[in-house]
Amino acid sequence: MSIPVPPVPAFPPAELTLTSIAGLRAAGVRAGIKASGNPDVGLLVADEAVPAAALFTQNHFAAAPVLLSREHLARSGGRVRAVVVNSGNANACTGEDGARDAREMCARVAQALACPPEQVLVCSTGVIGVKLPMEKVRSGIDAALAQLGSDVEDGRRFLAAIMTTDAYPKEACARAGSGVVAGVCKGAGMIQPDMATLLAFLATDLQLSPEELGAALPRLAARSFNAVHVDTHTSTNDTLLLLATGKSGRAADWEAQAARVAHRLAWLIARDGEGATKVTTIEVTGAESDAAAQEVARLVAASALVRTALYGNDPNWGRFTSQVGNARSVRNARALTCVLQGIEVFREGEPTAFDRAAASRAMAQEDVHLELRLADGAGRAVVLTSDLGYRYVQVNAEYTT
Amino acid sequence: MSIPVPPVPAFPPAELTLTSIAGLRAAGVRAGIKASGNPDVGLLVADEAVPAAALFTQNHFAAAPVLLSREHLARSGGRVRAVVVNSGNANACTGEDGARDAREMCARVAQALACPPEQVLVCSTGVIGVKLPMEKVRSGIDAALAQLGSDVEDGRRFLAAIMTTDAYPKEACARAGSGVVAGVCKGAGMIQPDMATLLAFLATDLQLSPEELGAALPRLAARSFNAVHVDTHTSTNDTLLLLATGKSGRAADWEAQAARVAHRLAWLIARDGEGATKVTTIEVTGAESDAAAQEVARLVAASALVRTALYGNDPNWGRFTSQVGNARSVRNARALTCVLQGIEVFREGEPTAFDRAAASRAMAQEDVHLELRLADGAGRAVVLTSDLGYRYVQVNAEYTT
Repeated sequence: MSIPVPPVPAFPPAELTLTSIAGLRAAGVRAGIKASGNPDVGLLVADEAVPAAALFTQNHFAAAPVLLSREHLARSGGRVRAVVVNSGNANACTGEDGARDAREMCARVAQALACPPEQVLVCSTGVIGVKLPMEKVRSGIDAALAQLGSDVEDGRRFLAAIMTTDAYPKEACARAGSGVVAGVCKGAGMIQPDMATLLAFLATDLQLSPEELGAALPRLAARSFNAVHVDTHTSTNDTLLLLATGKSGRAADWEAQAARVAHRLAWLIARDGEGATKVTTIEVTGAESDAAAQEVARLVAASALVRTALYGNDPNWGRFTSQVGNARSVRNARALTCVLQGIEVFREGEPTAFDRAAASRAMAQEDVHLELRLADGAGRAVVLTSDLGYRYVQVNAEYTT
Repeated sequence: MSIPVPPVPAFPPAELTLTSIAGLRAAGVRAGIKASGNPDVGLLVADEAVPAAALFTQNHFAAAPVLLSREHLARSGGRVRAVVVNSGNANACTGEDGARDAREMCARVAQALACPPEQVLVCSTGVIGVKLPMEKVRSGIDAALAQLGSDVEDGRRFLAAIMTTDAYPKEACARAGSGVVAGVCKGAGMIQPDMATLLAFLATDLQLSPEELGAALPRLAARSFNAVHVDTHTSTNDTLLLLATGKSGRAADWEAQAARVAHRLAWLIARDGEGATKVTTIEVTGAESDAAAQEVARLVAASALVRTALYGNDPNWGRFTSQVGNARSVRNARALTCVLQGIEVFREGEPTAFDRAAASRAMAQEDVHLELRLADGAGRAVVLTSDLGYRYVQVNAEYTT
């Protein structure tokens, strides 16, 4: 059976990338870890150890690099000199050997930069349960160290080296005061648990302490990466890192600008979800609390029935209301109003006489907005989800074997 | 694009059906509610008011017939003389008119049988948000009353009248002592929220009190209908009813036999899930508690990634382990062992060197068994799920519009 691959728009590269951040250099090289021969070792290096904060996967099977990076960040007091990344192999479910390999990757970079190993973080993404080909990794690290640079192209090479099944590179940037916030990420939903990791690297040249970064990062993640629901799986290797090189002073709006960058990166991830054709923003308002709104938004976003209706441009409000009806936190479900692309398809518990064909046409957009309006309080949540089409089944049913 | 429809095996009719129960008569007629002209009004009548218990949807948008039946069962003290069912229209999201129509359906049957209206229950299944065509419903009820009979064919006509998108009729039976337990149901997952209702009618001619039935029903449901996870939606109209006519004495093993019947019906529902090709039984053992085991089993069963892997006969253990890794209730995830069709694909936290091709062949069966073995305690849960293939997308993306 021939499944058409939905066309992926060519997203223009961001105006600025990680190497636009004063004090950062980057590299990306082909080490031969990936069978495809694509770039697979990336290195990001700050001129000196700089303040950093990170969020890691909560999955019980967190991979060796995640465990080590978490430990390093704690031991260094939130100071990072370098991040070494490999793609093509997740170094997960690899036991003691995996832990030793992750340590060796950090140590090799630390030795070259003459810094303590705990100032080096490591991320891996790719197949699970296979040991790292350390000969290739070592050569790749050495080559990346030799090629570090601060041109835009160096940043782009780093980005290329962290990608796995991504359909396009993902980057975003914003200016804040006299500084820049830039970010790159990889991930296309849990397209395959073997290769699904979300890796996101945000950096700014503004002056921020590890404490400021650590306080802001969960807020930034909540409205971006943690608001993406392509499916319910988290990966063994998910890592979100935020660095501040401190070269460009302070800016009052830095967090707002960082939020824009993080949201754009999250949107690009949802858009890339397994044959997705659009990004749907599900906004729940009027819930008893923000947590209650989250419950509703996640139930709706996670539903295969909702996601197939989005794929089919089917304004099938029954799929939204039945999931709202399933949410334990909802008090007065019968006050529910559903607004799809600005069209009231369900008002205060009853269907409306909307034009189905017009609503369907309105759904055939790259950005779809669904508001679920309750009357329980002031709680609000926003979640991004991708649609579920034939290509999702093809990618996910016909992968390993 | 042409999507092949997976062949549905012709399940043999059960040896006995509802009308095999001494003291029960049934009918099913074509009232013209369904555009297809298929049977759409069914009636089940006991010779006298008999003990009954029921479970209804927990959805906040419970339909008018559900609200009324719940009220009737409470008012009658768990005594039921008749159940009237229509398919083709769910009488849900229909406001005050819907409540009045449901009352009229019960009253019409009660008047004909000369019993109080609260001894009549009503179930509806079909499109949501459309008012019942009461002229047709009235004629259908009158015709069904006139045709009530106790032949197997009468039971089969009742079964035909409750079906909507089911690919095949679903019935099961067992003998207990000198009596019979028989059941019929409709439902094919939440194939469309408009038509997705689970309706299940179980009956026995054994002697049981409303209290005995009420105590047993949640236990029966927990291991059958409530253990089916085709998707996460519940319908506005889900109803499970259990009647006992008391004509055939008592039997010590009645609940075990009823459990067999309920499990078979649930299996038939999972097998019919939106283009499903198999039923997968997910068994979680060694969890801290039964509730913890339920959390894990449901997370795995609800995962689109797991369900596409099942469809593709892909022994991709990473999809199982990553969901176990997501379960908050798991204590020692690294003790996890996954056994797929008897093959250990993951042992105590590490991949095994199993033969992928052989495992894939072992998955190409109508019944697939996945055991997820933890080492946290003695908690256990079993869930049935259907696989997710191209046909699921077609059915669900291309329905309404």
